[in-house]
Amino acid sequence: MEHRERPSIAPDEVLVRVEAVGICGSDVHYYREGRIGGYVVEDPLVLGHESSGVVVAVGSNVKTRRIGERVAVEPGVSCGRCEQCRKGRYNLCPDVIFFATPPVDGALQKYVAIRADFSFLIPDTMTFEQAALTEPLAVALWACRKAGVTVGSKVLVTGSGPIGLLTLQTALAFGAASVTITDVDPVKLELAARFGAALTIDARALAGLPNRLDVDVHIECSGNASAAKDGIGHLDRAGTCVLVGMGGGAPLGITVADIQERELSITGTFRYANCYPDAIQLIASGQVRVEELITARMGLSETESALQHPSLPGALKAIVFPQQ
Amino acid sequence: MEHRERPSIAPDEVLVRVEAVGICGSDVHYYREGRIGGYVVEDPLVLGHESSGVVVAVGSNVKTRRIGERVAVEPGVSCGRCEQCRKGRYNLCPDVIFFATPPVDGALQKYVAIRADFSFLIPDTMTFEQAALTEPLAVALWACRKAGVTVGSKVLVTGSGPIGLLTLQTALAFGAASVTITDVDPVKLELAARFGAALTIDARALAGLPNRLDVDVHIECSGNASAAKDGIGHLDRAGTCVLVGMGGGAPLGITVADIQERELSITGTFRYANCYPDAIQLIASGQVRVEELITARMGLSETESALQHPSLPGALKAIVFPQQ
Amino acid sequence: MEHRERPSIAPDEVLVRVEAVGICGSDVHYYREGRIGGYVVEDPLVLGHESSGVVVAVGSNVKTRRIGERVAVEPGVSCGRCEQCRKGRYNLCPDVIFFATPPVDGALQKYVAIRADFSFLIPDTMTFEQAALTEPLAVALWACRKAGVTVGSKVLVTGSGPIGLLTLQTALAFGAASVTITDVDPVKLELAARFGAALTIDARALAGLPNRLDVDVHIECSGNASAAKDGIGHLDRAGTCVLVGMGGGAPLGITVADIQERELSITGTFRYANCYPDAIQLIASGQVRVEELITARMGLSETESALQHPSLPGALKAIVFPQQ
Amino acid sequence: MEHRERPSIAPDEVLVRVEAVGICGSDVHYYREGRIGGYVVEDPLVLGHESSGVVVAVGSNVKTRRIGERVAVEPGVSCGRCEQCRKGRYNLCPDVIFFATPPVDGALQKYVAIRADFSFLIPDTMTFEQAALTEPLAVALWACRKAGVTVGSKVLVTGSGPIGLLTLQTALAFGAASVTITDVDPVKLELAARFGAALTIDARALAGLPNRLDVDVHIECSGNASAAKDGIGHLDRAGTCVLVGMGGGAPLGITVADIQERELSITGTFRYANCYPDAIQLIASGQVRVEELITARMGLSETESALQHPSLPGALKAIVFPQQ
Repeated sequence: MEHRERPSIAPDEVLVRVEAVGICGSDVHYYREGRIGGYVVEDPLVLGHESSGVVVAVGSNVKTRRIGERVAVEPGVSCGRCEQCRKGRYNLCPDVIFFATPPVDGALQKYVAIRADFSFLIPDTMTFEQAALTEPLAVALWACRKAGVTVGSKVLVTGSGPIGLLTLQTALAFGAASVTITDVDPVKLELAARFGAALTIDARALAGLPNRLDVDVHIECSGNASAAKDGIGHLDRAGTCVLVGMGGGAPLGITVADIQERELSITGTFRYANCYPDAIQLIASGQVRVEELITARMGLSETESALQHPSLPGALKAIVFPQQ
Repeated sequence: MEHRERPSIAPDEVLVRVEAVGICGSDVHYYREGRIGGYVVEDPLVLGHESSGVVVAVGSNVKTRRIGERVAVEPGVSCGRCEQCRKGRYNLCPDVIFFATPPVDGALQKYVAIRADFSFLIPDTMTFEQAALTEPLAVALWACRKAGVTVGSKVLVTGSGPIGLLTLQTALAFGAASVTITDVDPVKLELAARFGAALTIDARALAGLPNRLDVDVHIECSGNASAAKDGIGHLDRAGTCVLVGMGGGAPLGITVADIQERELSITGTFRYANCYPDAIQLIASGQVRVEELITARMGLSETESALQHPSLPGALKAIVFPQQ
Repeated sequence: MEHRERPSIAPDEVLVRVEAVGICGSDVHYYREGRIGGYVVEDPLVLGHESSGVVVAVGSNVKTRRIGERVAVEPGVSCGRCEQCRKGRYNLCPDVIFFATPPVDGALQKYVAIRADFSFLIPDTMTFEQAALTEPLAVALWACRKAGVTVGSKVLVTGSGPIGLLTLQTALAFGAASVTITDVDPVKLELAARFGAALTIDARALAGLPNRLDVDVHIECSGNASAAKDGIGHLDRAGTCVLVGMGGGAPLGITVADIQERELSITGTFRYANCYPDAIQLIASGQVRVEELITARMGLSETESALQHPSLPGALKAIVFPQQ
Repeated sequence: MEHRERPSIAPDEVLVRVEAVGICGSDVHYYREGRIGGYVVEDPLVLGHESSGVVVAVGSNVKTRRIGERVAVEPGVSCGRCEQCRKGRYNLCPDVIFFATPPVDGALQKYVAIRADFSFLIPDTMTFEQAALTEPLAVALWACRKAGVTVGSKVLVTGSGPIGLLTLQTALAFGAASVTITDVDPVKLELAARFGAALTIDARALAGLPNRLDVDVHIECSGNASAAKDGIGHLDRAGTCVLVGMGGGAPLGITVADIQERELSITGTFRYANCYPDAIQLIASGQVRVEELITARMGLSETESALQHPSLPGALKAIVFPQQ
């Protein structure tokens, strides 16, 4: 931990006093291994990209009445001018600046500067820890959008970590007729059942089920190499698989014929676009319960143990409160 | 070859005197190996599913003025009542009856019966051999539809066999800005250039190109195990790959991360739906030139050599004229 | 009322003993005026197209184990073979045969024959009166689908009759962020609030609100001439209006410039396609409460008063039980 | 005409020496009437928004190698940060700054500054007058996109002015099976036939045709009050109408029932988004011939007569060359 000056802010930025930061699996990867795939930490890096706080200063192009606003912070600032941005796919902007992705510092500090349009007003009734979890919920929401989950959808979610459990709840908010979910941890499966899963399955049993589940949508949230293949095997004709879980350096293992015979669609997500306002609304309305995922709460000085928390048995999500 | 009675026709069928039949790679597979994947020939099977002819009789529910009509025959009769049919995806109908797929006989005979709505009027100016090739063109058209080819699309087609060359032309008809195409046969690449390919590449060089081609769409038409992976590697962000070429029993070889980082979409085609009228129009208007693919023309008694034709050097498509 | 023979059934039909029939506004129109637009009653016509019952006999092509099945009856049998059917838009089939649309008899009788694929199994827990209301719910579901209602949508529904109240509930099931609803009857608006409307507005005040509501979607369910225009005025940029309410013979009243400046989309619904299974699931899961719309229950001999019921103050939906 | 200083450029802008400017109907409106609907000219206003030229200076954030680049100038600079921009609908950006729309000056001057990402490189083979017409072609391209024109589409274009004739050609580039076009001027209809119209019809005869044309798409380009209604009447089931022609202050005149019975979709266009690169490619490839629309060429001192040109018989498009 080090002392730094408050960041200066550009004319179109706001300065946010950070009130809550969620710890994500990618933070843990950087902390432990110093890299995720091609992204390598070379200089000291501030982690954390799931954050919320209060606007305490605004740049010269931002209206001063935003001071005092309670906000969720979307951590990837895209350029707004490239082909991807202009087409509405700003998550694919090649010039995006994303918190806690080397060499960009993240939110595990007392203050962060962010372009004004990437800080989103939250309702008075929403806590900062809820607001920090807008970020993983945006991941889940983007996955459900890309999957086309809607009224009547039969959905399979593989993996019951924070993203899997949020995807389960979000799929139900989109009107899914049923969500089946897997994990190897029975405690997480129980929690999934409480969140509305119609069926919970031990992930190791998925491939061996006697019948195809015939789901319309498979959303892979475990990052486990075989889960993609196992889930795709349960898709109905014209089904869609969305790959969300990271760590997938192994080949997919499915064949051309697998895809052709049922005309499956397979895609993946890279962060999200245009999800924050809707994710905030899902939390505010109670359609998605994020706070039940929080299994640890710490002050900034305990950040190191927060980064170790996700590896503990039964752990889901740690929140760091930088002002404490 | 054997003598059979003219088929009887059901109330909603027409009887077609077959005038031309194209030989497809799948016919060759059944002829040589007696199977394609799980489809096994157990009893004598009439091959051929690319056909055209003249309506010579109609069932009791069909208007008699159709007699004499020149038609292209869509070879897969779907039920019209299952979920897939009702949703417009009749190519995925589990009860489809498809020509020359065991145990259903195909079109390499003098007469075939077909449900009336699967025989499509062709213009007077269209030859029967052109009309027979409506079938492979429907494959290409369906691929371009699923790929979303449109004005501005940069397209990569892997494989310059009949399906690849038709996909090239069809992509241009959809307004593609450019089509790059591959093959190992320089003669086919030359033909592709004549059909409007912007760039032709030796398939073995595709993986080793110094720069990503950044195409919006990759349509895999070779059936070669590595072509899918090689082509997917050249997709731009948010790009789409459509797998058309058959024979793909080997794993795809791409990783979860490959799909996620650019948010690629990968899908495949199983036959086609709602393509015949538009394919006929593409031929009739000259937007797609099918006749230039014909490298052999035979009578019914020469069917055996027609089935061997596709293996000859430089061969593309053989047509059998069952009335000769 | 007259005595008729049990209908005979074709090979692909089932015979249903009718247990419940909802009375729809269109039934009332035919009953009172003998016509709806171009559809004129010339011979005696059995009304009723919202029905459920028990399969008591099956045609020769239908599996006998369907006998005894409790079903909701989709009242429009499409041909399955025309362009519209093949493209999945079977509600636009020009050869559809629809209950209670001259000269086709409807369901207000003890038995009806229906093609097997238009009778849908309902869960044991669902009552026949609930199942009969699958039909108006399918109307609401189709409207929400065409409108693209999804998580985050701000929706305006004009009209709080049975279709409006079902559309309100269905929009929430699709994840709508909020639904604003109008009517002239405060009792209906109160009921709408109970069903989850975020805001209820007197329909006569809609045009005069000081600010545009900026909704993403307007679904017009009142059939009132000015409601379409009033609601369209409250759409946000890129918003969509779906016209459901019938009786709209008056010009829309909006201008070309109205549509262009915000790039609005305006469409309408004609019945529905592929909605029955999902509508049944919405009722079974409790996401939509249809039974709270029922304000009268009668036997077959009271059909005449059932047809008068919708005009009574506070009335919403009458159900006739043909076996009573 | 007045002398002005060369505009200064912001860090993210380029300075363009204007080489060609097309005169649009909206320029004529502002010139004659001083307003278009709610947009009123209050101070002196430089007209012109269809322009091309050469980059002669770049702002501090733009790479200097762009100097000397020949460009087409997209005239509406959107903010890149609001909801509309982030969703890819930047043409609906409420903060857009659009050339020649009060109080923003247009391109009828020797130099204009424009944000770098709104100036698009053109090929060496393209003339400046062709490049200036990228703008109206973008209007046509956006209309075809919103209409979903594709292989097989039967299209009706009402109005054969510059936008109508470009829409005709663009629809063919998208693969339309046929385009029917109307006008009251037989000379324009002849030109339309040369551009590939399958059928040309006197606009006054459209409403009275004995049979519905059953087109999939109607694109209204005349701005005539009755053309929208007349064309919509010729749509097939599930057809789409896109309203492009301006001047539509009169009510549409269609009824709710008109829209419902065929489930029509009606929308309109406001400028365009993400069309410039593809429009440039359509011109460069020869798929669209813009230069045949040019009926007058003038120097900057003749701007006044250029603004009167569109009213002359047979006139289509005047080009002003500001450096002459």
